[in-house]
Amino acid sequence: MLNRVRIILIGTSHPGNIGAAARAMKTMGLAQLHLVAPELYPHEKATEMAASATDVLEKAVVHKDLSSAIADCTLVIGASARTRKIPWPMLTPREMAEKIQAEASTATIAILFGREQSGLTNDELQRCHWHLNIPANPDYSSLNLAAAVQVIAYELRVASVNLPPSTVEDYPLATVAEMESFLLHLETTLIMLNFLRADAPRKLMTRLRRFFARARPDVMEINIFRGILTAIHDGMQK
Amino acid sequence: MLNRVRIILIGTSHPGNIGAAARAMKTMGLAQLHLVAPELYPHEKATEMAASATDVLEKAVVHKDLSSAIADCTLVIGASARTRKIPWPMLTPREMAEKIQAEASTATIAILFGREQSGLTNDELQRCHWHLNIPANPDYSSLNLAAAVQVIAYELRVASVNLPPSTVEDYPLATVAEMESFLLHLETTLIMLNFLRADAPRKLMTRLRRFFARARPDVMEINIFRGILTAIHDGMQK
Repeated sequence: MLNRVRIILIGTSHPGNIGAAARAMKTMGLAQLHLVAPELYPHEKATEMAASATDVLEKAVVHKDLSSAIADCTLVIGASARTRKIPWPMLTPREMAEKIQAEASTATIAILFGREQSGLTNDELQRCHWHLNIPANPDYSSLNLAAAVQVIAYELRVASVNLPPSTVEDYPLATVAEMESFLLHLETTLIMLNFLRADAPRKLMTRLRRFFARARPDVMEINIFRGILTAIHDGMQK
Repeated sequence: MLNRVRIILIGTSHPGNIGAAARAMKTMGLAQLHLVAPELYPHEKATEMAASATDVLEKAVVHKDLSSAIADCTLVIGASARTRKIPWPMLTPREMAEKIQAEASTATIAILFGREQSGLTNDELQRCHWHLNIPANPDYSSLNLAAAVQVIAYELRVASVNLPPSTVEDYPLATVAEMESFLLHLETTLIMLNFLRADAPRKLMTRLRRFFARARPDVMEINIFRGILTAIHDGMQK
């Protein structure tokens, strides 16, 4: 189970936090660290804070943008301290661990952590199937980045000692790349139908994105929806 | 419950770890920090790492020895990564939180954390009622001191609050009647598009029904989909 989980740190400012996160991961048995546009990396401060987890650091994969970091993932979870305008399905760390345990035999899982000062952007959060909120003191909920990684990794480790139940799906779940391609096809079609207009509230695509993220279509379902979009296109041409 | 818990750091080498521990405590609602013979304290590095938890740091009580730090406590728990020669009653962090929750109304509770390099001494561990072991990677179980405090404080917080239901919906879920009405509308549209044909496998509607049942759309999402179906119908009439 722990081998299927990728920790993705986005736009980290302080290299020491990257090293400390690598250490937190390794103590709990996580090894896959991905970095999206870190401000300073590699850096001696990262190596210093990693202590004996420099192997995790050395194997870390650096990406220019989030898309390439999650393209092959089937479950994307984003850590978020704040409530957003359009609320997303929300998990506690314990619920997250149970969910991952249930899916780990087939899934490739990403957990996203945002910038030290500002967290994940709305756009980044909308790329997620679920949001993850660590219970905290309402008067001061600002966990250090590596401390947040530690709590999440700890819950994953506790869950990993239980045997994963096997979930049955007849088709594999769509990857992030397949979903993005479908959402683009959907958006193009809605514009063609004049249902989505430049002057209309942008919330429409956000709501559709959230709906499909929650539904988590498999590849057969995506094929059906894409077939419908193509049929609409053909019907309009006549 | 959180007010009855005292975090005691013994012989801490790095003042930055004291500050980071104060921050970890405050994010979870713990406020009582006691320090036994810290090597460097107060220290600017402690203040820096405490971020907005300097109040916890400023109220920290410094002791020369452990005895004075735990004299008034009724329950003493010591964090220990290693197995000792004389095994002590052992708790996981979750069991610890349950135990403290059960005793919090009457107890004054201390949780001891040892030195960065060597942990608690046998003598210190034998002053405890229970030992506490954070589940960790057997190949590398060395959590940073503040990270260990974070995990323990997190378990205490989870135990201390009845978390509100974690799923958030901004609109009520569609009723069965609304869903059936939508599915009929969808089916009609797919027939009009010649995507669903009498001679085609009936599994198509079954798959779509299963998909939407799983997704559990709210009324706003159903309205969006019905709007799209209407736009398709209008587009075909032109």
